[in-house]
Amino acid sequence: MVNGTTGEGLALSIQERKQLAEEWVRQGKDKLDHVIIHVGALSLPGSQELARHAAAIGASGIAVIAPFFFKPTSKDELLAFLREVASEAPAIPFYYYHIPPLTGVKIRVEELLDGIKEQIPTFQGVKFSDTDLLDLAQCINKNGREEFVFLYGVDEQLLSALAIGANGAVGSTYNYLGQKTNMMLQAFAQHDLALARKYQFLTGEFLNFVIKLGFGVAQTKAVMTFVSGIPMGPPRLPLVKASEEFIAKAKAKLDSIVWPTN
Amino acid sequence: MVNGTTGEGLALSIQERKQLAEEWVRQGKDKLDHVIIHVGALSLPGSQELARHAAAIGASGIAVIAPFFFKPTSKDELLAFLREVASEAPAIPFYYYHIPPLTGVKIRVEELLDGIKEQIPTFQGVKFSDTDLLDLAQCINKNGREEFVFLYGVDEQLLSALAIGANGAVGSTYNYLGQKTNMMLQAFAQHDLALARKYQFLTGEFLNFVIKLGFGVAQTKAVMTFVSGIPMGPPRLPLVKASEEFIAKAKAKLDSIVWPTN
Amino acid sequence: MVNGTTGEGLALSIQERKQLAEEWVRQGKDKLDHVIIHVGALSLPGSQELARHAAAIGASGIAVIAPFFFKPTSKDELLAFLREVASEAPAIPFYYYHIPPLTGVKIRVEELLDGIKEQIPTFQGVKFSDTDLLDLAQCINKNGREEFVFLYGVDEQLLSALAIGANGAVGSTYNYLGQKTNMMLQAFAQHDLALARKYQFLTGEFLNFVIKLGFGVAQTKAVMTFVSGIPMGPPRLPLVKASEEFIAKAKAKLDSIVWPTN
Amino acid sequence: MVNGTTGEGLALSIQERKQLAEEWVRQGKDKLDHVIIHVGALSLPGSQELARHAAAIGASGIAVIAPFFFKPTSKDELLAFLREVASEAPAIPFYYYHIPPLTGVKIRVEELLDGIKEQIPTFQGVKFSDTDLLDLAQCINKNGREEFVFLYGVDEQLLSALAIGANGAVGSTYNYLGQKTNMMLQAFAQHDLALARKYQFLTGEFLNFVIKLGFGVAQTKAVMTFVSGIPMGPPRLPLVKASEEFIAKAKAKLDSIVWPTN
Repeated sequence: MVNGTTGEGLALSIQERKQLAEEWVRQGKDKLDHVIIHVGALSLPGSQELARHAAAIGASGIAVIAPFFFKPTSKDELLAFLREVASEAPAIPFYYYHIPPLTGVKIRVEELLDGIKEQIPTFQGVKFSDTDLLDLAQCINKNGREEFVFLYGVDEQLLSALAIGANGAVGSTYNYLGQKTNMMLQAFAQHDLALARKYQFLTGEFLNFVIKLGFGVAQTKAVMTFVSGIPMGPPRLPLVKASEEFIAKAKAKLDSIVWPTN
Repeated sequence: MVNGTTGEGLALSIQERKQLAEEWVRQGKDKLDHVIIHVGALSLPGSQELARHAAAIGASGIAVIAPFFFKPTSKDELLAFLREVASEAPAIPFYYYHIPPLTGVKIRVEELLDGIKEQIPTFQGVKFSDTDLLDLAQCINKNGREEFVFLYGVDEQLLSALAIGANGAVGSTYNYLGQKTNMMLQAFAQHDLALARKYQFLTGEFLNFVIKLGFGVAQTKAVMTFVSGIPMGPPRLPLVKASEEFIAKAKAKLDSIVWPTN
Repeated sequence: MVNGTTGEGLALSIQERKQLAEEWVRQGKDKLDHVIIHVGALSLPGSQELARHAAAIGASGIAVIAPFFFKPTSKDELLAFLREVASEAPAIPFYYYHIPPLTGVKIRVEELLDGIKEQIPTFQGVKFSDTDLLDLAQCINKNGREEFVFLYGVDEQLLSALAIGANGAVGSTYNYLGQKTNMMLQAFAQHDLALARKYQFLTGEFLNFVIKLGFGVAQTKAVMTFVSGIPMGPPRLPLVKASEEFIAKAKAKLDSIVWPTN
Repeated sequence: MVNGTTGEGLALSIQERKQLAEEWVRQGKDKLDHVIIHVGALSLPGSQELARHAAAIGASGIAVIAPFFFKPTSKDELLAFLREVASEAPAIPFYYYHIPPLTGVKIRVEELLDGIKEQIPTFQGVKFSDTDLLDLAQCINKNGREEFVFLYGVDEQLLSALAIGANGAVGSTYNYLGQKTNMMLQAFAQHDLALARKYQFLTGEFLNFVIKLGFGVAQTKAVMTFVSGIPMGPPRLPLVKASEEFIAKAKAKLDSIVWPTN
């Protein structure tokens, strides 16, 4: 998922977003299964331009956040906006990026699903970044024939979403705790809930710790940097880079965690 | 759990709350494993009076909601209030009733647990009525020796709480869908997550439906009445009784649900 | 106004509230124009008992806050609750205490006024503690014959409420800045808006300062104590008494303010 | 003020915003005292590009909203962002557009003012669209030498802002009730508060009415259309055009209002 929240897509210019998308598609070729480009924007023409571009460069799919300055107030208004973007990339899968804590758009996804294929034939699923698990459960309940995928985005409670049938996860944590999360997914797949829980608790322990220090995209990038060794660079204003104090504490905490051994 | 939210405990006078507590203890003798009396109140002396009374009549435990007109702003302030109530009933278990959507008191329970036994020797657990599953998970993570119990109170996502180790459930839904929920608990205990999920989805389908109609304690009582055949009586002001239209629609929906058969 | 927010009325037992009301009525005789007793409570019978008591001891009026655990969701539900309290004290004036920042009950007062005299013949006015000045303005617009009084309760913006016709003020600040506020009221009455503004700015400067330190009922009592020399005693849990540091800073700030001289 | 909220600036592409700015500057020549271009954007480079463009075409000033996807969390972060935009148009006045109900950025303006001239030498004032009149009052209090202007943007309570010294108003209502508002400003300037109040009450009566019907930018445009006779065109998605029912009701309400006659 390129140009999403962690990638600060909405803080980039249209031109910068295109450059990044192109580079990821190029570099991801033969290495990544999917390169989905987030093309959401406050402006419909901007979003449409990015959608056409993503299709043209061979992205595997596009994702769109709900517009959030002027907010859609009903399912129909949201759907109309999403449809106008999706139709500019009619040959590749479309994902809705649902993140009410950041957008304030609380339209229930289970309502959005009703008849969505008629409006958006390329609709493929949702990145669901919300704690309303009743809504997620009803989405999955309605998705009996498993047409759609629901990728969960509140990393600290992924196991709870898996329990009700989420298909997978997209989140910033997986940039530095991806391997541990794969262990959790594997344990869950093998019905070893006790082991899966241990991984979830430890991931949560780290997140709980850094949230109390003040944790956002700038801090996530700092953690990605010290875990991977690949410098992520500073964030763009209004974000400011994580303090040295944060980095030291976060690193010490992460190093202190004793993960299960098989 | 007597005199809690569904029982409209906070809308009753102290005298009425005592009467109800006495009657439940009397009737529950030899029939119920536990009769826990909710003794929380805005006024500390009122809450203390109820705590002494509950202990005197032989209740199995007491539960206390966070005060919510003047709100505690730190763990220590909340703990000080709870301790002053708990110490009036020093021989019976104490439960904290955590329900931030109603109280606005968002002090993290995992923080409250640190050193709680020194302050409240009778502390036994929490009724956890919140969607913050990171907090719940950290509570369970800290509760390694399983001293405490965590009873989950957001009925529409109980399965997600069980997945991370919640010990059980207390909620209004179980007054009319208790048997179905027991089936879910049983399926979960037998590692049959697919079956458990079906029960959760169907319970959720009903709740999702009635929430859209407007669902609160008054409506819960109407559903309890038509399911059990036992008239629950009208709610007390400011609540007003459920409309006939609500009752007809809720009943039709509940009747339409096809539950799994073993 | 006795047993309101500053008086921690809702943190007292019914018995304590009666004692306080009696004492204020006794001491206020021949000294105070009005002794209005706040009789609101979460429990309707508790509120009714206090209303009858206030009437019996010769209070000049009663005031009632909206119930806020179970919240009225419409004008009619709120009115029904208020009516059942008011009718227990049918010979003395009734005031509605509107404070949505604390209660979460946002029912518009201008709607509540429609037909209120038929439901509550003793209705006399509102203590309006909210920043929604459109609502307040419409109340005053509807109150053409000046049947009712609107007493404003957001002290830091009283002048703005006076500008649209508020009749007066009830607030905690007046317990220690009452004289200065009287100067502001006098300047306003004499159409000297420039002078009135100076008083408002200086009151605001103090409040702005203490709000940043953390300012609530406990801190208000500390300020009342050092200004008046009359010890107000500690607050009741969950409130805890103001820190010495707060008191020192607040006192220094208040002492530093240079008020206009005539 | 061009490309602000009513003009749906944030829903337009950069290119469209430039076109509109150019046209307003051209048409406004010799007719308008000021043409201020709103150049705020989620993306800093986008905002900077618009700032340079506004300066180049001869705009009288620029205004910038706080970024609101990634939100500044302190005065310093907000100021850093604003400074980077202002410095691209170093010869024309800069205004901060403060509208927390839409942005969620609640950094107090009175804090922002401290030392702002050192950071942003072109800083000239604020469009203040919030109901926190303590903050506005402290801004005016600090602005003793009247370096800056504070233009109020919550139209339904403009009179309350004037009472504490606001210098003027910028708001959508003035597109169709500008003449009436001028009468209010004139009455206020002549110390005729009673007359000013009548205008404020009647403007408020209209706004109160349409707010209950559902009132946003799309509806504002419909009202502008029927009042001015100049078709404003449909809004852009996610906004959808006002219903015929809304238009009929709003028109009837506006026609029914009897304004004061001199």
